[in-house]
Amino acid sequence: MLTGRSPSPPSSDRVRPDVAVVGAGPIGLAIAWRCAARGLRVAVHDPAPGSGASAVAAGMLSPVAEAYFGERQLTGLLLASAARWPAFAAELTETTGVEIGYRTEGTLMVGLTGDDLAEARRLWAYQQGLGLPVTPLRPSELRDSEPALAPRVRGGALAPTDHQVDPRLLVPALRTAAQRAGAVLVPQPVRSLSDVDASVTVVAAGCGAAALTGLPVRPVKGQILRLRAPDGVAPGFRHVIRGYADGEHVYLVPRADGEVVLGATVEERSDTTVTAGAVQRLLRAGVDLLPELAEYDLVEAVAGLRPGTPDNAPILGPLPDRPDVLAATGHHRHGIVLTPITADLIADLVLGCVPDPLLAPFRADRFGGAAVAVSGGPEPTLEGDLWS
Amino acid sequence: MLTGRSPSPPSSDRVRPDVAVVGAGPIGLAIAWRCAARGLRVAVHDPAPGSGASAVAAGMLSPVAEAYFGERQLTGLLLASAARWPAFAAELTETTGVEIGYRTEGTLMVGLTGDDLAEARRLWAYQQGLGLPVTPLRPSELRDSEPALAPRVRGGALAPTDHQVDPRLLVPALRTAAQRAGAVLVPQPVRSLSDVDASVTVVAAGCGAAALTGLPVRPVKGQILRLRAPDGVAPGFRHVIRGYADGEHVYLVPRADGEVVLGATVEERSDTTVTAGAVQRLLRAGVDLLPELAEYDLVEAVAGLRPGTPDNAPILGPLPDRPDVLAATGHHRHGIVLTPITADLIADLVLGCVPDPLLAPFRADRFGGAAVAVSGGPEPTLEGDLWS
Repeated sequence: MLTGRSPSPPSSDRVRPDVAVVGAGPIGLAIAWRCAARGLRVAVHDPAPGSGASAVAAGMLSPVAEAYFGERQLTGLLLASAARWPAFAAELTETTGVEIGYRTEGTLMVGLTGDDLAEARRLWAYQQGLGLPVTPLRPSELRDSEPALAPRVRGGALAPTDHQVDPRLLVPALRTAAQRAGAVLVPQPVRSLSDVDASVTVVAAGCGAAALTGLPVRPVKGQILRLRAPDGVAPGFRHVIRGYADGEHVYLVPRADGEVVLGATVEERSDTTVTAGAVQRLLRAGVDLLPELAEYDLVEAVAGLRPGTPDNAPILGPLPDRPDVLAATGHHRHGIVLTPITADLIADLVLGCVPDPLLAPFRADRFGGAAVAVSGGPEPTLEGDLWS
Repeated sequence: MLTGRSPSPPSSDRVRPDVAVVGAGPIGLAIAWRCAARGLRVAVHDPAPGSGASAVAAGMLSPVAEAYFGERQLTGLLLASAARWPAFAAELTETTGVEIGYRTEGTLMVGLTGDDLAEARRLWAYQQGLGLPVTPLRPSELRDSEPALAPRVRGGALAPTDHQVDPRLLVPALRTAAQRAGAVLVPQPVRSLSDVDASVTVVAAGCGAAALTGLPVRPVKGQILRLRAPDGVAPGFRHVIRGYADGEHVYLVPRADGEVVLGATVEERSDTTVTAGAVQRLLRAGVDLLPELAEYDLVEAVAGLRPGTPDNAPILGPLPDRPDVLAATGHHRHGIVLTPITADLIADLVLGCVPDPLLAPFRADRFGGAAVAVSGGPEPTLEGDLWS
């Protein structure tokens, strides 16, 4: 759409930006960073940067553990983005000097009971069938890798390439990177696309994209807890742990500073209240898997709204009727892992490059004209060969 | 100690107060109210009124349900104070115009499982043996009285005279009453008894009394949750509910505004961190007894420190070596219910009246000179006939 050029003159309110990005979450900020670094004038509109789903998110980079039945195209995108994460993290920290909590100890997937393990094994077999690195562990190997696991955890498997990052560190780092590259933050809300004036508009507004574009993006509530190991020590486990515990599916993400993120519910609701039942179920499952958590401080219970779509996959590309408006939303549970590839591929589109074939399944027109936000909708029906 | 007289001239910093009360929790404020209303010049010292245990307390007025084995003298004091509550509440609301959430629906005591019920019945039999009003209910009567109880709750009993008040409304009301009666609030901390200058000093500083007096008052941590019924409606139950649930002992206190207080742990610790395990156990027990709580908002999780004593009973009266210093502390789990009688009897002592025989078991010298804060210490050994 736009061609790259040498860096812009110092930005000013008088100069019309090349790109207006609506939304300063990780997706919007990373797109702004990439576009600004390639010489475009970029304005990012958000009254409260980083206040959306990313403020709640755990930051797992788990394309393997999140490879679910019936989501092969999404899994492909997750894997491609996760593969970009090491370089993306290194570049971001090098550019900004900000540590973002990128950790590579890998992810342990466990089942508490026999039934839990049977359910987990069915998924591991599917993941292995895709050729993904999932290594079942003998009980002794599981204990050796994480001695803090409850003795009654029946079994587990390692996904060594599923890593983590801290979204609450990531967003300020991306903001710094985008601003250093020349992007300008405009702290006003955008209530309509006509509120912004640029050659290209990128809608990276999470759940807010629905009102701006009519796309079928709906809020999917997630409740999540933050615990802290007592006395300022690091948690007693190193891996991200994803577990089935008496039918409850939870994850536990340890941070170097002692924090443990314990999540998350998946609810078809648009409120952000924290409910007693959800907190109780999360804590019960967490403590059952890792008994030491009972002694941890409970420091935060919060709910966020993921931007969901009918097929659980993001919407990446021009609106059907507005080629100058690019959607970059609908990332649902996968916004953090999908940040690098979304930024790169959307920046390519902004610059008029030939669309990466990876984008084909995620076009904005795949839901049809009268799409409405429906839970559990069909798989995308448009295949890559229909893509321009 | 002091004789009553006509109301003091307008207070001024230059006039030495008759009474300095250290601590502006409900106990200290009620004592200040009673003393000021009887014509004494009163100064109440506290940098943060109402910020101690009362800010966390549930406000149950439960002398019957809290009548435990081996605490007959304490039970007597609880009953005597609870009997004063209706008039105390009426007078306070009349004086200040402030509603304090005094409710008289009574308390249901329930057992979830057969084992829980067996444990509860043992206590009910003890309470009935003391002649206290405890009415076992048939299962149909229990359902009729609180249809929101889980169907699997095995049995219950009603303590119709155990009521409740809202401590977060009580404290501002007492503060208003004390100030209207002429008491002056001094918002400075008292680090030593020499920091105050008055004819009589009353130490109503909760856990802070230990450092000021050397009395064996120790912090007993309690973690407590506040839930809220969705959509601003009142909770689906009217009684205070105290239950044994799979061995966990919890209480649920419904407020007219939709709040439900769910507590509490009893821990020999002096920190105020909220731990994952405690929250999980409280919620699990609460939801098991009243399933609708699962849908309630969890709005607060907080810990407070009760002022405990070796025999779980308060310390009321002069220090052994300082007849001009009166202790009114060590109220442990019973500070709210004991507020009226503590205020009345301590005001009597300040005014030099003959001590009420009720005070005899709660003298400050009952622990001996070298008393240390020990959990589960012996019953008081000084009987009423040794009292002056």
